[in-house]
Amino acid sequence: MPGYTMQKQQLQTRLRRIEGQVRGVARMIDEDKYCVDVVTQVAAIQAALDKVSLGLLDGHIRGCVRDEIKAGGGEAKVDELLEVMDRVLRR
Amino acid sequence: MPGYTMQKQQLQTRLRRIEGQVRGVARMIDEDKYCVDVVTQVAAIQAALDKVSLGLLDGHIRGCVRDEIKAGGGEAKVDELLEVMDRVLRR
Amino acid sequence: MPGYTMQKQQLQTRLRRIEGQVRGVARMIDEDKYCVDVVTQVAAIQAALDKVSLGLLDGHIRGCVRDEIKAGGGEAKVDELLEVMDRVLRR
Amino acid sequence: MPGYTMQKQQLQTRLRRIEGQVRGVARMIDEDKYCVDVVTQVAAIQAALDKVSLGLLDGHIRGCVRDEIKAGGGEAKVDELLEVMDRVLRR
Repeated sequence: MPGYTMQKQQLQTRLRRIEGQVRGVARMIDEDKYCVDVVTQVAAIQAALDKVSLGLLDGHIRGCVRDEIKAGGGEAKVDELLEVMDRVLRR
Repeated sequence: MPGYTMQKQQLQTRLRRIEGQVRGVARMIDEDKYCVDVVTQVAAIQAALDKVSLGLLDGHIRGCVRDEIKAGGGEAKVDELLEVMDRVLRR
Repeated sequence: MPGYTMQKQQLQTRLRRIEGQVRGVARMIDEDKYCVDVVTQVAAIQAALDKVSLGLLDGHIRGCVRDEIKAGGGEAKVDELLEVMDRVLRR
Repeated sequence: MPGYTMQKQQLQTRLRRIEGQVRGVARMIDEDKYCVDVVTQVAAIQAALDKVSLGLLDGHIRGCVRDEIKAGGGEAKVDELLEVMDRVLRR
């Protein structure tokens, strides 16, 4: 069972809101809204997605990573965690 | 008319794809997909949104900012541009 | 003459401070300071470097880019500007 | 003993190189080098600092965080880890 199981509802709520924000940006462009305001809105979506990533990593560390460490291992999990953190950091 | 008018269609296509990717992430969570794979997918959405921001800024610079510079001004537009770039950079 | 000429002094002051901060991080590691505090300090350096980049881009846009736009061109400069903004964004 | 003890030498080498790169940027500005080239160099420093942060977090997770998890706790350490990851992400 993935580590984020307990926060699934919260993550889904956030993603639904983000989906709405993406549609909102499409609408802003459709209505020729001022470019700087559209970019500001895109930055807000990115901040919301950062929170989703951190929420997922939170569950992952407290779930999978912790379980393997407790079982005496976890090296491969930590390698993988650092790799995905690098990917998040560099986008 | 906002500077991005000419690329509107391309931006809309990208945003529709991003909306689909966000729904895809919600589905992955729903199906208990492996957390690291979900985070990787969120990072891909972030990269796609970066391209949308740069596309918008591109149109803005070649449109509004250039027009005001040509008209002998543009100082306030450049101030505003730097501010929004800062917002994009820091999210 | 590069666009940042007028702010050269301010940029140099910031870079000297950043150089000191980098040495400070080396010292923290040398003294086995708590890892999370070291990472926090590195994040502060990153924020300071972001400001240097924005300061440089500010001068560039008000200098080179504006001059070429005023001279009736600037397309290649804007292309180049967007490319470097992409590089800053993705590091 | 902090988790990064074993990689101390490598981190110090990187930080010395970064310090040199910061001085290099100051020199480029002093010599009126082309702004876009200077920004590109600053982006390279930021990428190098990202690696330092990830190196520090690597040691921290394999050290402090793992030790506390093994000892049956670690909740506060994971809270703190997520907080600092957020700080790194947003700069």
